[in-house]
Amino acid sequence: MKELPLAKVYQLLEPGPVVLLTTAAKGKANVMTMSWHMMVEFTPPLVACVVSSANHSFAALRASKECVIAIPSAKLARTVVAIGNVSGRDTDKLARFGLTPIAGELVAAPLIGECFANLECRIADTRLVAKHNIFVLEVVKAWTDPRQKNPKTLHHQGYGKFAVDGPTIRLKSAKP
Amino acid sequence: MKELPLAKVYQLLEPGPVVLLTTAAKGKANVMTMSWHMMVEFTPPLVACVVSSANHSFAALRASKECVIAIPSAKLARTVVAIGNVSGRDTDKLARFGLTPIAGELVAAPLIGECFANLECRIADTRLVAKHNIFVLEVVKAWTDPRQKNPKTLHHQGYGKFAVDGPTIRLKSAKP
Repeated sequence: MKELPLAKVYQLLEPGPVVLLTTAAKGKANVMTMSWHMMVEFTPPLVACVVSSANHSFAALRASKECVIAIPSAKLARTVVAIGNVSGRDTDKLARFGLTPIAGELVAAPLIGECFANLECRIADTRLVAKHNIFVLEVVKAWTDPRQKNPKTLHHQGYGKFAVDGPTIRLKSAKP
Repeated sequence: MKELPLAKVYQLLEPGPVVLLTTAAKGKANVMTMSWHMMVEFTPPLVACVVSSANHSFAALRASKECVIAIPSAKLARTVVAIGNVSGRDTDKLARFGLTPIAGELVAAPLIGECFANLECRIADTRLVAKHNIFVLEVVKAWTDPRQKNPKTLHHQGYGKFAVDGPTIRLKSAKP
């Protein structure tokens, strides 16, 4: 994995890809599928996301105060859906789905070797957790896999239906 | 526009499309381009979004406590970028870009006739506005244009570069 400047993180998350979120607590890593996230600030990059208190990852995220957001390409679609349909409560999902945990630099949660980007995050604001399960995260380190060129991402439309990135269009804009 | 059941709203926003946000204050409507939004709850549908205090729409949103999220198809890409590059401070953007305001049912902000979906929203939580410009909105009425079949949406990757929805894949999933 190659380091990505933090100022470019928004270009990965702003398009709304389905992501994986890894946590580690009591020496046990877990992974969940997540589509409810948004950018909040460019730099330092802040990201808000919803992790339901019904998710097994919720307690690990709250206790460890850190996580990794890993971005899969469309090639991982079947794995992404499978991860979303079982719980870490009774399954070691990383092992079961053949994902390669890679040690991060600043957080204990693992990067995922098969994902084209991995963002190490620390919790920045928990004020909306109790009411809405909204966590605000700060991305403290970002990595991309230079071997995965022009990855196509997944955009979930409900019950396993996804739009895959299609053509790219480039229009002149002064705004980031 | 045809009414859409509120329980289906997440299927429009979860994929992360670029949207337009309209407001109305002091009898004046405005529109901005927005990519920083996420679903928060299925039903009643809650949506979080970031509207910067630097945006002209910020004051109108905060004062009126309501807005419309309008979802453009990729055919409106040039308009979407143009809206994002000028301010409502000195421009009547709806008129300038030839957008058709349609009266909503529950909020004063206009629907946009050219968009394939329009979501009437009221502010539900402002606790993270002061620190992060995060508004939590409740969608109170949703509309789709039945004449626009299978619209392709835009996913912004920075400075006017967009991924347009490509192929659709359908995998078996028990989860919404």
